[in-house]
Amino acid sequence: MAGGVKYPEVYLDMLSQPCRALHILLSFNKVPFTVRTVALRKGEQKTPEFTSLNPMQKVPVLVDNGFVLTESVAILKYLVTKYSLPEHWYPSQPERRAKVDEYISWHNTNTRPHTAKVFITEVLIPRMTGSAVDGLRVERALAELKDTLDMLESMFLKRQPFLCGDDITLADLLAVCELMQPLGGDRDVLSDRPKLQRWRSRVQSALGESFDDAHSVLYKLRDNFKSKL
Amino acid sequence: MAGGVKYPEVYLDMLSQPCRALHILLSFNKVPFTVRTVALRKGEQKTPEFTSLNPMQKVPVLVDNGFVLTESVAILKYLVTKYSLPEHWYPSQPERRAKVDEYISWHNTNTRPHTAKVFITEVLIPRMTGSAVDGLRVERALAELKDTLDMLESMFLKRQPFLCGDDITLADLLAVCELMQPLGGDRDVLSDRPKLQRWRSRVQSALGESFDDAHSVLYKLRDNFKSKL
Repeated sequence: MAGGVKYPEVYLDMLSQPCRALHILLSFNKVPFTVRTVALRKGEQKTPEFTSLNPMQKVPVLVDNGFVLTESVAILKYLVTKYSLPEHWYPSQPERRAKVDEYISWHNTNTRPHTAKVFITEVLIPRMTGSAVDGLRVERALAELKDTLDMLESMFLKRQPFLCGDDITLADLLAVCELMQPLGGDRDVLSDRPKLQRWRSRVQSALGESFDDAHSVLYKLRDNFKSKL
Repeated sequence: MAGGVKYPEVYLDMLSQPCRALHILLSFNKVPFTVRTVALRKGEQKTPEFTSLNPMQKVPVLVDNGFVLTESVAILKYLVTKYSLPEHWYPSQPERRAKVDEYISWHNTNTRPHTAKVFITEVLIPRMTGSAVDGLRVERALAELKDTLDMLESMFLKRQPFLCGDDITLADLLAVCELMQPLGGDRDVLSDRPKLQRWRSRVQSALGESFDDAHSVLYKLRDNFKSKL
């Protein structure tokens, strides 16, 4: 594209939950983009090249026509505005936008750490240390996740089909990618949660192929996990 | 104000860092508002009345003409838009706005928890349990804060007077209220950080009286702490 507008480059690891959310937003909305894979399990986020791009050594990173941006939430919001994506992702009406901001803040101290902990104890630590799964720690992580799932049902999905209203937003995208993560250890954290399962189906339907595409690496991890049992 | 537009009501505890940020934003910008104090040390966030307003039992909460909003970051952003506050607080230009969003995301997993931990170990736990300060835990908290302060200097303030550019934004407001908190235990976490001290002075000057007004409860806590030594 000599001289023309360049499309966004995104530095991703598809086993990272917010990276998948970013991949889905771009691919679903047919924004042309280039993926630069940063394999966290190989420590590629610590190379000098990547560190000069993001001193925090974290994915995702966006490079958009020379503009470098870190932090998944900032990247998602920026892309909706910059690429004029459909309004429903991040509504401009102040009250509706505030509700998306509210969920995302809550997500980062609730849904995200508590769901991630299940995956970390059940899959990541055993893989990295070669030790057996500590069943007690997994149980504790699941107990901590319970309150979060209760709140998702009783607050955010109390009277509406999506987390922040009648249509899918960045909130649902971040939440679904997070709640899928324990599947890497063949665990469905929503298995006894019909209300949240129906929400997940709605989100999945709304996202079409982009959902399974982004989760294909996680599905492979699950298949690998199952074959080792 | 029978029949007229109602001004925002904010449920606050002035010993909470993000509550102070909210108080400063409103008072500095001369938005008329009503404060409803929720004393966390008395457990007032757990009353049935407050819980029905915010099931998360956390402050701050905004009630704006019947619209209820939780999560400090969502509230601050909403107020800037809804009350047409000066552009510099949260710029509308996509790249500049993204930089504020980026800092705030990073803040919530770095500046906020690491600075709060110093206050919690040095002031809150001893006050609540009646036990002596655990010097080792305070040292550990300070060591964890070190990396965050390094990053604030080397990344965010590398080439600019405020965290996200040439003017004060919501990022500086949240950061300064957080970094002031350990002062409740008579500790200045920036005492050996001239670059960050200069930034704090700039922020403080920009905020004028609203800064000291919002911190008066924290100053009282400090004086009380000193008199007990």
